[in-house]
Parts: sequence; C-alpha cells; structure tokens
Amino acid sequence: MTGAKLHLVRPLGFEVTDKNLKRAGLDYWNELDITYYDGLADFFSRNSGSFYYFTTKGKNTYSDISFPDNSYLLFGREDAGLPESLLVKNPDTCLRIPMRPRLRSLNLSNSVAIAVYEVLRQWDFPELAAEGQLTKYTWE
Amino acid sequence: MTGAKLHLVRPLGFEVTDKNLKRAGLDYWNELDITYYDGLADFFSRNSGSFYYFTTKGKNTYSDISFPDNSYLLFGREDAGLPESLLVKNPDTCLRIPMRPRLRSLNLSNSVAIAVYEVLRQWDFPELAAEGQLTKYTWE
Repeated sequence: MTGAKLHLVRPLGFEVTDKNLKRAGLDYWNELDITYYDGLADFFSRNSGSFYYFTTKGKNTYSDISFPDNSYLLFGREDAGLPESLLVKNPDTCLRIPMRPRLRSLNLSNSVAIAVYEVLRQWDFPELAAEGQLTKYTWE
Repeated sequence: MTGAKLHLVRPLGFEVTDKNLKRAGLDYWNELDITYYDGLADFFSRNSGSFYYFTTKGKNTYSDISFPDNSYLLFGREDAGLPESLLVKNPDTCLRIPMRPRLRSLNLSNSVAIAVYEVLRQWDFPELAAEGQLTKYTWE
C-alpha cells in the first residue's frame, strides 16, 4: 500500500464535509493521501502510469487484468460514471465488474472496494495485516 | 447466481424499513430472496453446506479459500461482528480480509461486496453480464 493515493478530480459528485464523512463512517479520512485536480486534463498532465477505467459500459472484465505497479483505477461520479468521450478512446482498459443483467450499477463505494481488493489480492496484500486475534479466547 | 440467497439472523443490526433501504440505495431489495431466522441455532438447523465466517479476527485470508458450491458467507453485525464463541469452534473457516494494521474494520457493505465478488470471480461470474455498451458511441 505504499504510495496508495486518492486522487479527486473536480467537479466532485459529493462534498467533502465533516458531516458527510461522519455519516459515511470515514473515520480514517485524515490518513488518506489526497490530491485534488481541476479536471481530467489536470489529472492526466500530473500523473503517468497504467490507467484503468471502471465502467459498467466496458467490454473487459476487471479481474482478467494483471494490474502492474503504478496502476490508476479511475471511477466516475456515482450518478454519471466516466465521460464516454474518455472511454471510447480507451477500449482495452475500460473494465466492467460483472453484475446481474437488470442491475444498473453497483454503488460507487462497493465498486471501489471490489476493484481495489482485486488489485491487492493480485499483489498479495502488501503491507496489510493478514491475521487477527480473538479477544475472549485465543486461537490454538 | 442461481440460488444466491440472503439469510438474515435476528436480532438484526439494522431495521428493514423503506426509509433505511431508500437511504442505502437498495433499489433491488424486492428482488432478493431473503429468509429470516430467530437466531443462529435456527439458521444452522435449516441450512447445510460449507460455512465461512468473515471476521477481522480470522487467521486465514479469504482469497486463499477455494469456495465450493453451496458456500455460505457469514457476517456479523457491523458493530459487533460474529460471536467469538462461534468463531473459536471454526478456526479453519474464519476468514479475514487483509487490511491496514491500524484499521478497525472495513464497513459491512464493503466487506460483503469484496467477499461475494471473490467467490463470483472464482466461479467465473455465473449468469452475470460481463459486457456493457456505450450509449453515445459504439465499441469498435
């Protein structure tokens, strides 16, 4: 997770306020390494690596990708998704999370969780704690 | 996903009300196949298969398991987790999602999403739609 960062591209689909963060249970917001951008052009001008566009409109399945170091996982606003003008130029890196045919979309939070943990799984969960402990008992 | 079911064991950590469901964006609640139970004894007496206990206290990593048909993924209340008296009797099937050492827990929604999609990935996403379409453009 060294170097795991959150990049937020304006305009945002949500407001970063204490009230909203508290409601969402984001106790750890202050621990995140966040960079803000004024738009996609700003974002792309300041980052380089492998970009993956998560979208229900993609033709490729997210878990078929072998994610390299320095991967960027891009997600759109919950209500609109990523701009199609961006997607159509990147057909091979538009990734879909398979879902039920009639389902419009997983929510943004779950989509990010599923995608990030697939990358972490492929990387063997670097720097994450793999084992827990009971409190009232001890594991044998 | 044939046979995918939601089993809810009382007492629940949330109330199933229209207001709460709407706030959580659960537009598809009515499409879920839900069974309610009066407690864990009731649940276990009416189900058989392979049970997996998702808990931050587990010693095994969820993605190291090859999930068989008829797997049950058990999650506890968001505030309390599964009872330790149940966990301690099932050490080999207590599964942890690796996370940052200082993080108490992923939220329940994200934990379920990560776990379910690992099972679906292993099963090659049965009956799920793998491809989407653009609306303003067409994929070449």
